[in-house]
Amino acid sequence: MIIFKSCLHLSKQLFFLNDMKLTEEDIQAIHNRIQPYIKKTPVITNNWINEHLECEMFFKCENLQKVGAFKVRGAFNAVLNLSTTDYKKGVTTHSSGNHAQALALAAQTLGIKATIVMPENSPLIKIRGVEELGATIVKCRSTFEDRVLTLNRVIEETGAVFIPPFDHVDVIQGQATCAYEMLQDHSDLNAILAPIGGGGLISGTCLTVNAISPKVKVYGSEPENMDDAYRSLKTGHLQTNPSGKTTIADGLRTDLGELTFKIMQEHLTDIFLVSEEEIQSSMKMLWERLKIIIEPSSAVPFAAMLKNKSMFKGQKVGIIITGGNVDLENIHF
Amino acid sequence: MIIFKSCLHLSKQLFFLNDMKLTEEDIQAIHNRIQPYIKKTPVITNNWINEHLECEMFFKCENLQKVGAFKVRGAFNAVLNLSTTDYKKGVTTHSSGNHAQALALAAQTLGIKATIVMPENSPLIKIRGVEELGATIVKCRSTFEDRVLTLNRVIEETGAVFIPPFDHVDVIQGQATCAYEMLQDHSDLNAILAPIGGGGLISGTCLTVNAISPKVKVYGSEPENMDDAYRSLKTGHLQTNPSGKTTIADGLRTDLGELTFKIMQEHLTDIFLVSEEEIQSSMKMLWERLKIIIEPSSAVPFAAMLKNKSMFKGQKVGIIITGGNVDLENIHF
Repeated sequence: MIIFKSCLHLSKQLFFLNDMKLTEEDIQAIHNRIQPYIKKTPVITNNWINEHLECEMFFKCENLQKVGAFKVRGAFNAVLNLSTTDYKKGVTTHSSGNHAQALALAAQTLGIKATIVMPENSPLIKIRGVEELGATIVKCRSTFEDRVLTLNRVIEETGAVFIPPFDHVDVIQGQATCAYEMLQDHSDLNAILAPIGGGGLISGTCLTVNAISPKVKVYGSEPENMDDAYRSLKTGHLQTNPSGKTTIADGLRTDLGELTFKIMQEHLTDIFLVSEEEIQSSMKMLWERLKIIIEPSSAVPFAAMLKNKSMFKGQKVGIIITGGNVDLENIHF
Repeated sequence: MIIFKSCLHLSKQLFFLNDMKLTEEDIQAIHNRIQPYIKKTPVITNNWINEHLECEMFFKCENLQKVGAFKVRGAFNAVLNLSTTDYKKGVTTHSSGNHAQALALAAQTLGIKATIVMPENSPLIKIRGVEELGATIVKCRSTFEDRVLTLNRVIEETGAVFIPPFDHVDVIQGQATCAYEMLQDHSDLNAILAPIGGGGLISGTCLTVNAISPKVKVYGSEPENMDDAYRSLKTGHLQTNPSGKTTIADGLRTDLGELTFKIMQEHLTDIFLVSEEEIQSSMKMLWERLKIIIEPSSAVPFAAMLKNKSMFKGQKVGIIITGGNVDLENIHF
C-alpha cells in the first residue's frame, strides 16, 4: 500500500469514521463558509427532456461553477479549514483534472502557495487552467505510483499540506453543499443522481440528503469500464478498477476512497452502469437540448436515466452536472 | 417591392411609427403578459473574461431560453396580442431559424394552428425543432422571392395571420423584455451589446433602455459581410446586404426592417463590424470559458468587445447571448 506522508487530518478522519452524519446546521455552516468564494449555479429544466423521459428533471449546472466544476466547493472548504500554521505551508495535490484547478483557485484567492502534481498526459485545457491560476505545476508520469512518489517529494521539499481530491472529510463536506443548494430550491425531489469517480460528490450528496431530506433517493452512476464502486457496493468490499480499460468520462477514471465508500454503503440507494456509447449519445443530447457544455463524466447519470426510464416515471429527479472542462478540439459528434 | 398580403397590424404600425417610445409601465405590462410562457434566463459572469477584457461582463443567456433563443419573447407577445377573430385563423411566418421555432411553440402552447414556410436549406436542428412543436412546415426554395410567394399562398389558402420575424410592433416589444430582465438584476450597466440581424432585438433593447436607464449605451454588432445596418446608420438610409456574401452567423443573414431601423436611428450609440475569423475565435472562447453552447450570431458582440477593448475598460457591460441552436455535427474547432 502506498502511504502519503502527510497525515494532517488523521484524528479528524478517525472521528469522522465513527460518526459520519451531518446535521442541517452543519451543512448550513459549511455553505456559509464557502459561499462567498463560489457561485450559486443555476438549476435548469427542459420541456423536451421532461416529455421524452416522462418525468420532471432538474439539472444543477456545476459546469457553470468557478473553474467549470463542483470541485471548488471541496477545495475551498479544505483550504479555509487549515490551521494558521498549515496555512503558511501552502497546499499540494496530485490531479489531472478539475481538483487541480479548484485547489489552485482556492490557494490563489486565499493568498497561499499551491504546488500541483499533474500527469504529463492531462488535458491541455486543465493544465492551462492551473497555470493561469498561478500554481506551480510539477509534471509526472501518468502512473499512480509516479503521481504518489512525485507528490511525496513535493511534500518533503516544500512542507506543503496535501489536500486529496476526494477521500478527505473537508473535501466531502464541501461537495455536500451542491445538493444542499439544489434541495433549498427544489425540496420536493424524489431522487438525485450523480456520477461516481472517487466518490467525493456522491458521498457529500448522501450526507446532505440524510440530514435534510432523508426520503430523497440518491443514485450513483458509473461507466461499465470503471465499475469499481458498483462492485464495491455489491460485494461489500472496496474494489479497484480493472487495469487495461478506459472511459471517455475522464473525471471518473479513479478508484473509490475508503471514506467515500463507507458513506455510500450507508446511504446510497443503488448504482447504475452505462456503456461508452450511452455516455457519448447522452452527452450529445444534453449539449443539443440544454445548450450547455458538459464533460463526458457529467453525461453518465443522464445516460443512466435514459436506460432506466420506467423507474423514474412521473417523478422529480435532480441530476448534478459535474463539470464542463473538455478540449473542444477533440469533440466530433 | 414585394408586398405581404397580410396587413393586420397596419394601423398599429403607423401609430407606432409616430410614437415609438415605451414607458417602464408598458414594458412591465408586456413582461407580465409573456412571463408565464418564457424562462427567466440566468445572467452569468466569468472571472477570466473580466480580467482578459479589463471590465466586468454580464452574459444574458437567451441560449438557455425556450427553443434556445430570445425569439420566443416576441412570438408569444405577438400571438397573445391577436384578436379573438385572428386567433382562430392561426398564424404563419417564413423563417429558416429561431423565429420559426418560437412561433411554433407559441401556437402550440396557446392551442392555435401554425404554418411555417421554411427554405429547404434550413439547419436540420431548426427544421426538427419546428416539427416537434407540431407546426405544419411548407418548404420553399431559399430565395427571398420564393419565401414571400410561398407565404402569400399559405395566407391565401389558410387565412393565417402573418407574424413577421422582426419588423412588427408586438415582436419588437416582446424582445424588449430581455434587456428589461437584465436591467432589473443589473441596473448599473454602462453598456449593452447585441447582434443585429433584422434588428428586432436591438431595437427592443433600445426601447427598454430609453424607458428605464437612458444613460446606458446600446451598441449593435454585425458581421463585416452583412453590414447593412452599419451602412444604414452611417448613410441615414435603409441599405440592403450585398448579394454573394455570406457569414457563419446564420441568424444575421437578413436585411434590417423599416421599423427597427427607425428605432435604431433614434437610440443606438454605434455599430461594430467584425470579421468571420473574429466571430469564429470569439465563439470558441465563449464555449470554452462560459461552458455554454452559443450559435455563431451570439459571438458577434463579444468579438466586437475584444476588438474594441479599450473603449470598455473599467465598465460594466451586458451582452445578450441570443441563441444556442447549432448543428453540432458541423462544429469543428
